[in-house]
Amino acid sequence: MNKIAIIGASGYTGGELLRMLLNHPEVEITDITSRKYDGTPAHKIHPHIRDSGLVFKNKTPSELDADVVFTATPHGASMKIVPEILDAGIKVIDLSGDYRYRDTEVYEKWYGMEHTDKENKGVFGLPELYRDEIKKTKLVANPGCFPTGAILSSYPLVKNNIVERIIIDSKTGVSGAGVNPSETTHYPNIADNVNPYKISSHRHMSEIQQELHGFEDVKVSFTPHLVPVIRGIQTTSHSFLNDENIDITPDEIRKLYQKEYGKEFFIKLMDEGEIPHLSSVRGSNFVHIGGFEIDDTKRLVMLSAIDNLVKGASGQAIQNMNILLGIDEKLGLTHYGLHP
Amino acid sequence: MNKIAIIGASGYTGGELLRMLLNHPEVEITDITSRKYDGTPAHKIHPHIRDSGLVFKNKTPSELDADVVFTATPHGASMKIVPEILDAGIKVIDLSGDYRYRDTEVYEKWYGMEHTDKENKGVFGLPELYRDEIKKTKLVANPGCFPTGAILSSYPLVKNNIVERIIIDSKTGVSGAGVNPSETTHYPNIADNVNPYKISSHRHMSEIQQELHGFEDVKVSFTPHLVPVIRGIQTTSHSFLNDENIDITPDEIRKLYQKEYGKEFFIKLMDEGEIPHLSSVRGSNFVHIGGFEIDDTKRLVMLSAIDNLVKGASGQAIQNMNILLGIDEKLGLTHYGLHP
Amino acid sequence: MNKIAIIGASGYTGGELLRMLLNHPEVEITDITSRKYDGTPAHKIHPHIRDSGLVFKNKTPSELDADVVFTATPHGASMKIVPEILDAGIKVIDLSGDYRYRDTEVYEKWYGMEHTDKENKGVFGLPELYRDEIKKTKLVANPGCFPTGAILSSYPLVKNNIVERIIIDSKTGVSGAGVNPSETTHYPNIADNVNPYKISSHRHMSEIQQELHGFEDVKVSFTPHLVPVIRGIQTTSHSFLNDENIDITPDEIRKLYQKEYGKEFFIKLMDEGEIPHLSSVRGSNFVHIGGFEIDDTKRLVMLSAIDNLVKGASGQAIQNMNILLGIDEKLGLTHYGLHP
Amino acid sequence: MNKIAIIGASGYTGGELLRMLLNHPEVEITDITSRKYDGTPAHKIHPHIRDSGLVFKNKTPSELDADVVFTATPHGASMKIVPEILDAGIKVIDLSGDYRYRDTEVYEKWYGMEHTDKENKGVFGLPELYRDEIKKTKLVANPGCFPTGAILSSYPLVKNNIVERIIIDSKTGVSGAGVNPSETTHYPNIADNVNPYKISSHRHMSEIQQELHGFEDVKVSFTPHLVPVIRGIQTTSHSFLNDENIDITPDEIRKLYQKEYGKEFFIKLMDEGEIPHLSSVRGSNFVHIGGFEIDDTKRLVMLSAIDNLVKGASGQAIQNMNILLGIDEKLGLTHYGLHP
Repeated sequence: MNKIAIIGASGYTGGELLRMLLNHPEVEITDITSRKYDGTPAHKIHPHIRDSGLVFKNKTPSELDADVVFTATPHGASMKIVPEILDAGIKVIDLSGDYRYRDTEVYEKWYGMEHTDKENKGVFGLPELYRDEIKKTKLVANPGCFPTGAILSSYPLVKNNIVERIIIDSKTGVSGAGVNPSETTHYPNIADNVNPYKISSHRHMSEIQQELHGFEDVKVSFTPHLVPVIRGIQTTSHSFLNDENIDITPDEIRKLYQKEYGKEFFIKLMDEGEIPHLSSVRGSNFVHIGGFEIDDTKRLVMLSAIDNLVKGASGQAIQNMNILLGIDEKLGLTHYGLHP
Repeated sequence: MNKIAIIGASGYTGGELLRMLLNHPEVEITDITSRKYDGTPAHKIHPHIRDSGLVFKNKTPSELDADVVFTATPHGASMKIVPEILDAGIKVIDLSGDYRYRDTEVYEKWYGMEHTDKENKGVFGLPELYRDEIKKTKLVANPGCFPTGAILSSYPLVKNNIVERIIIDSKTGVSGAGVNPSETTHYPNIADNVNPYKISSHRHMSEIQQELHGFEDVKVSFTPHLVPVIRGIQTTSHSFLNDENIDITPDEIRKLYQKEYGKEFFIKLMDEGEIPHLSSVRGSNFVHIGGFEIDDTKRLVMLSAIDNLVKGASGQAIQNMNILLGIDEKLGLTHYGLHP
Repeated sequence: MNKIAIIGASGYTGGELLRMLLNHPEVEITDITSRKYDGTPAHKIHPHIRDSGLVFKNKTPSELDADVVFTATPHGASMKIVPEILDAGIKVIDLSGDYRYRDTEVYEKWYGMEHTDKENKGVFGLPELYRDEIKKTKLVANPGCFPTGAILSSYPLVKNNIVERIIIDSKTGVSGAGVNPSETTHYPNIADNVNPYKISSHRHMSEIQQELHGFEDVKVSFTPHLVPVIRGIQTTSHSFLNDENIDITPDEIRKLYQKEYGKEFFIKLMDEGEIPHLSSVRGSNFVHIGGFEIDDTKRLVMLSAIDNLVKGASGQAIQNMNILLGIDEKLGLTHYGLHP
Repeated sequence: MNKIAIIGASGYTGGELLRMLLNHPEVEITDITSRKYDGTPAHKIHPHIRDSGLVFKNKTPSELDADVVFTATPHGASMKIVPEILDAGIKVIDLSGDYRYRDTEVYEKWYGMEHTDKENKGVFGLPELYRDEIKKTKLVANPGCFPTGAILSSYPLVKNNIVERIIIDSKTGVSGAGVNPSETTHYPNIADNVNPYKISSHRHMSEIQQELHGFEDVKVSFTPHLVPVIRGIQTTSHSFLNDENIDITPDEIRKLYQKEYGKEFFIKLMDEGEIPHLSSVRGSNFVHIGGFEIDDTKRLVMLSAIDNLVKGASGQAIQNMNILLGIDEKLGLTHYGLHP
């Protein structure tokens, strides 16, 4: 059995790691840590996780008995503890933004703080793009929720140099804001409402740009909206065919996606006429990608749906863990979406 | 008292007309018609409208005793009855799409049916743009719900020739689909979900294009999404500054909007940092417009919020009625949004 | 014009008072107070109330220029300021629980604090029960939200001595918890969920008991549930016919309600087969009462629906204000529910 | 591998059976039938079930190759096909109401149709009550959704003869109404609303009475409410301590539950202060039971939460299947609830 510890296990991503890992056939959870809830049984914080026997402990990294550690810690906190864990010879999957950037200056600009660990470099943990690099690393930087859906739905377009601008308009569930209540997440402010926010300046824009700019000089814009949904991110990407590809057909675009993702277990391409829905991926690690329509203005519309807490966070982290451990990438993640 | 009749009063727009007109100080409802519910008291269909004394009748246009008639009839049905009402010397406010197009060929292409009344021409009933024309007409074509929010939030941009492309990404409440249940509106399919639909081919795109193309050759694209909301349309418009205006500032854009809309009672421009929310306009005839942000890619983001059944349908129809009757345009429409 | 001030106007009940009073033909709002938001324009806190010209001020009671003051202050805070307002010759409508109890000992037991103003006695502000007393008082104790729906739906039963036990099972919208966010009101904890709370010990039980016990020794129990609804309280009361009335028919019970409430504008009795729905009263001051069914176990089921912020708080407060001012009780309150 | 077929697999219970059985280690789905969708791949109807290779077929019972058949057919349809399946030597788990009643006259009264198969007797498929009988039968009558939550939360009370009346007030998610849209399930009628229905006459009352009356002459009443929830049934039971037990304490009652359910994997008793929430059991086969409070009127309040489609239908059916097959009762059902 592989030994797993979770640092900062009291939030939603911690709860999701528990939910899935406790049914994973090849791992054993040795520690869950929380400063605030030291001594508290898991089910007092995660009421769905009954009889696990797990209790939050306020442990330091060096006290952990683990092969792989998940750091479900806030941005800024991870880079304070990750070096120590790595030094102890333990592999790390970090769910914060701290190690996602190739250029720490970009991080410092968008996260508004100094990066204090420029030595350790993470591999961007999107297995469908970086599987080989993940296999070899000791530090996986698990992607952000918006970037996961946005990058996967646009990557074949930029890799094949088809479009010249991409507008990413995303609608996210409220669990993305985390477990702590705020005015933003107050039920009467969310229900029966749509809340655009950080409409031109969300930090995930920089993460999306990093991954999609590598290929060419496509301009990428991003606007998120909070919708009355618990889980899930629905992404609509509007892009414009470049001059060289002005006559490309939807079918030709679909073929590029099939070529790129045809063997990926967690990516499902919709048939013509099918729409990716949040309910189809709810609670699961699957990504549904559809759209493939071009209108009269030569705008291409692509759509994707993920569960922000699973493929957008803890499920993808477990997928990365499976790769790190050299076991079947699908283990513990084969359950379908909870539809309806 | 002005005498008002509503044809096809059993749907949501009919219910909204009743809700507001029954508290309007200068009108009296003489007739509500419905073929299906002939003889049924209003509250059996609209359970919130108690003790109005109104009963649905299956009347023909010629049997109506009215100064103004609202035709809350489906597309295709309106053009069959409007000529007869006009012939009887009664003014008409039509809530269908039948008279919205200057060019009936465009109508025929997007609505997939022959236009059988090419003689009577409607005035596009957006008072903020066509107030003078509405005053003089006998036939108002009440705008579609998406077009109302989309046109009002983008009109100053095209009028002043600032942008070269507009992507309109709208999120609509389910009442826009009407009172009749379908798989699309089945609660388990809508709740906790986001449903993009007709992503490159919604007929309201043509209506938006008609109104925004008049000014210049800006390309307009449109994608609607169904979100778990009863009422309201939140519109995010992404547009690109053209070369001549590449250095325009958000403040300069805000001033253009203030100039255009400063005296409009029903349009409220958000202060810096304020976001238009559906709850702020819920049940009301107000339009909230905000955004005014430009990102590094020279994308301008504008936002608007309306209640699809009020400013997007019945409230705007009453605003048009007030204009037709030569009374205060605000009468019966001064109530605020139902927040929270 | 009657001059009105609102103390503590930044919460939901304050917002509702503004929403309705700004369209009331016979009153003028002279002051809205808030310690926290001193100097802030109303629309920054109540985004739907645009262009009212109102600004929150941190004023003491003696600085107010008003005929009637609404104290929309927390329990315990009202009794600190009400004496001073009354001393200034101003009538008060208090929305807290402080003056609802005939016996302050009951208050002290259920609210867990000493009552510091035993001198001033409020009239329980349920106009349908206490209209004559309200006319003559200077201090109205506006009822709680749950008690309003519960008392009105059960009052004819106890007045006529028909039942021997009443179980009140209520389902409330989240706005009842107020404007301040908490774990309880965090969207992911409310949406797609049902949360029973204080299942045997909610303080509103004592208020309901006070009003229903006056008639006879019927036992009253109460359990509230938080449901994924913004506004509204749906109450189901299960009661048991006493031996003397074991053969009473639903029709006979209906007649008792008609006799009691037939002339009440804000109470609507449902026809047979009609169910009171929250949407029918949403945003309005109406109470819908239905049910009138008896099962094999001689259980009688009664149902009621109100908007907790309107008939359950601010609307009823305005109804009381109209009575205090000697003007038409319906003024400013004739708008219908926002259905759908 | 055990061979499993599902008759009527296109509804929600069919989808749930697929969702869980496709990850079950000891079974293989050989057939899914549907008259309407003959030839349609599973994912066209159940969009979350991708790449299963399953296709709906219009097969007769005799054409099935199965050890156990689930009949996910409507009431009335099951009794037409079950005899033929049993005759073929195949065990049946029926999800309709057809075989739940010991006395078919009760069935005929509440379901309004003649029972045409009085020969085959089903075992009531509540494993926590009837495990031994289920092991030996060939026909399991899977319980209704409301009865599952209601019976399990009240059974120890009646078994131990503690209470004299039980009022069951249940709040159910909309998926209980099935996959077919109707006015009842139209999003604008459900969202932000509470809909009591069949308040004194729901047929599940008879099923609850059958199971709870066996012990003593306690009177059981039932009222269901439709709430804006996709999945889940929250049940509040209000019961009255009988004279012999008028001084029983909450702790003593809790002990009776622990004795009854302490070894049951799928039943979790809440600690003091914990409330059973729908989110804790969402998508899972667990039942959460709490409450254990007694008020001044000697009313005992008990609470339960289940997922109506899992423990209330398909999950319980799989639990029954495991028992029938003689394999671990928990197989395929160990996943936790999807919280948040």
